[in-house]
Amino acid sequence: MLNDISLKEAFELVLKNITPTTLTKTISLNQALGEFLAEDIIAKRDAPAFSNSAMDGFGFKHSNSKKLKIIKTIYAGDKFEDFELNEDECVRIMTGAKVPKNVNTIIPIEKCLKVTDKYIEIPEIKKGANVRVKGEEIKKGEILIQKGEEITPETIALLASQGIYFVKVFIKPKIAILSSGNELKEPWEKANDDEIYNVNSHAIKALLQNKGFNAEIIGIIPDNFEKTVEFINSLKNYNVIITSGGISFGDADFIFKAFKQNGLKELFHGIKLKPGRPTMVGFMKKTLVFAMPGNPISSYLNTFFLAIPALRKLSGANKYYYNFVYAKNKNEFKLNPKKAHTALGVLKYGEWEVINNYKYGSSMLSALAKANSLIVVDEGKEKIKEDLVKIIPFNTDFVKKGMFFN
Amino acid sequence: MLNDISLKEAFELVLKNITPTTLTKTISLNQALGEFLAEDIIAKRDAPAFSNSAMDGFGFKHSNSKKLKIIKTIYAGDKFEDFELNEDECVRIMTGAKVPKNVNTIIPIEKCLKVTDKYIEIPEIKKGANVRVKGEEIKKGEILIQKGEEITPETIALLASQGIYFVKVFIKPKIAILSSGNELKEPWEKANDDEIYNVNSHAIKALLQNKGFNAEIIGIIPDNFEKTVEFINSLKNYNVIITSGGISFGDADFIFKAFKQNGLKELFHGIKLKPGRPTMVGFMKKTLVFAMPGNPISSYLNTFFLAIPALRKLSGANKYYYNFVYAKNKNEFKLNPKKAHTALGVLKYGEWEVINNYKYGSSMLSALAKANSLIVVDEGKEKIKEDLVKIIPFNTDFVKKGMFFN
Repeated sequence: MLNDISLKEAFELVLKNITPTTLTKTISLNQALGEFLAEDIIAKRDAPAFSNSAMDGFGFKHSNSKKLKIIKTIYAGDKFEDFELNEDECVRIMTGAKVPKNVNTIIPIEKCLKVTDKYIEIPEIKKGANVRVKGEEIKKGEILIQKGEEITPETIALLASQGIYFVKVFIKPKIAILSSGNELKEPWEKANDDEIYNVNSHAIKALLQNKGFNAEIIGIIPDNFEKTVEFINSLKNYNVIITSGGISFGDADFIFKAFKQNGLKELFHGIKLKPGRPTMVGFMKKTLVFAMPGNPISSYLNTFFLAIPALRKLSGANKYYYNFVYAKNKNEFKLNPKKAHTALGVLKYGEWEVINNYKYGSSMLSALAKANSLIVVDEGKEKIKEDLVKIIPFNTDFVKKGMFFN
Repeated sequence: MLNDISLKEAFELVLKNITPTTLTKTISLNQALGEFLAEDIIAKRDAPAFSNSAMDGFGFKHSNSKKLKIIKTIYAGDKFEDFELNEDECVRIMTGAKVPKNVNTIIPIEKCLKVTDKYIEIPEIKKGANVRVKGEEIKKGEILIQKGEEITPETIALLASQGIYFVKVFIKPKIAILSSGNELKEPWEKANDDEIYNVNSHAIKALLQNKGFNAEIIGIIPDNFEKTVEFINSLKNYNVIITSGGISFGDADFIFKAFKQNGLKELFHGIKLKPGRPTMVGFMKKTLVFAMPGNPISSYLNTFFLAIPALRKLSGANKYYYNFVYAKNKNEFKLNPKKAHTALGVLKYGEWEVINNYKYGSSMLSALAKANSLIVVDEGKEKIKEDLVKIIPFNTDFVKKGMFFN
């Protein structure tokens, strides 16, 4: 029988048993999106690297002089022998241009009282206005970005500004995806009415890809114990194996035994969870094995919920727990308090609604395709009320109406 | 001078003026992630395609008989000449296996009162339990997924289950990214202390990539009017051009004039927005042109906020407005009510906090790298209070602690 453990326990047990990789590679910024840093990034230069103007305007040494002679124009990128201004002088200066030695204040043209080709007249203005001072944001030598951070468009901006083009990142795991069931047809094949298509391999591969992991679809596990033992044995060079189906205790479910024959030590086999109870996670020597249920919603959800955080930890990421957002639950729905639950829903305009009152079956892919988020409920709850709930989004970025203005 | 319009107006004006592409291509599911469907997807088969068992158990015709003889075992994928059971008979049947003609109820082994090799004894059980009836989820011929939907892992699951492997999608636009400023060094070059790096091209490219759009970094616009006119003229085969810098009214800001010389008609030039005022959007014949500010946070935010929704509409997506989530704002901060504002912050565990009290400069990339979300505030607000606010996430999926259980 399945040795059901709680979902919380299952989740933590998987993460606890994962040792992050130490394998690294060096890549350039244009390949770096979605990789995890294998080193702290140290600032190579001050930011700003030189004191410069934050606006198009006139730069001067702050004093009581209110009529200033324009002695020079400085454009962004101009290089010049540094010089000092007198108190009655100013320079025309463009955004980003280096300010001369004793210029400490910039006034934009529209705040001047008078502007001619020769001079300007200015009102009172705060000393230091519109000058970005060398090093005020970042000091050379400080830690800019920490090891384990994911490289995002935002970190790429920061790295580029520092002239850091090559970064050391962790090598992501080599992942094999298998399905079980010789009856399955691939979606490019013709299936008769009494045949079904292989959904799980393709869904799991796309889900992993969406979360930054490449995986290979290896094929379909043979419906025969000896051949399966041999097949699994051939996969030991993968860091991770994800199977679906054949992991409950029906007669044809010999996948677990075939893994055991190959030295697998399971962390658990069975979770007190709906959907997705028949799930096994373990290690075959160093290879992390997820045996997911055959029902496509269960295998999707457990890959999302259990495998992705594990893959992130394995890949050296320093953030691998799902974040959540609060949303108002639109419809109360019932649960079996003896189990934990994952339920699909739609998160839109700050509200969340469970799909079909949580009455969809775990093979109903139309429910999955409608959903953009899920709720994870610990055991012991009999219902989810119309109240604030914690939601994990997965495809909520865009909607049909613009309602985001505050 | 800049002809400032409101951010709301700017946003709607851009979207209103975009005609979605009609260009399509046919691709296979394994290339389809992130593409937009150019056709309604019609169900090719019922789902389930045949009535089948939702569990491992015993199948029978519901009646008053409570002791049932096991006459056969049916595995998933087994093909057989259809047959009928007597009321005192049952079949052992596995999850997903086809049920014989008059089997209408399945009981899982653990609910049986007694199980031997020959027969089972069962308690009262609801007629229809654990049988998935042909067509109960999807009827052949109905619209499964609508034109314009983004292909996600979830829709890939649904498409695979229908044996739909080739889909028609819209061709995404060809996008050119330019920076202005001859002073810029590329991040792989060596810059002296008085030189700065090209951030915008790399940040914009990564941001577009993150949102599913490929773009080419074309180079740096010449610091000379005639050459710029010629350079822009050479880019007319792109569907979209995104430039950064040189678009306010400083002396060196001749990019706008060079676009005009090439026949550009602007929708607006200047937004009442902080940061990101000097922004121009227009059309040069059919080419959509975004001229973003030079300050890297401004150009990042306006690309995120204005360009990405436009690119989605141009690509035939049916959802192109940002969704939002509610979060409790942790720290009150002040705004200039004459402008709209976009402010960076951190969304974590249901709470949102603006970066550095909204006092970072628009060149401070460390602020951008810390942020995972933004708030968009319409003009007329003097402050954002400690209250529920609408937040647009961009990198909020993972955090350091697991707090998502309800």
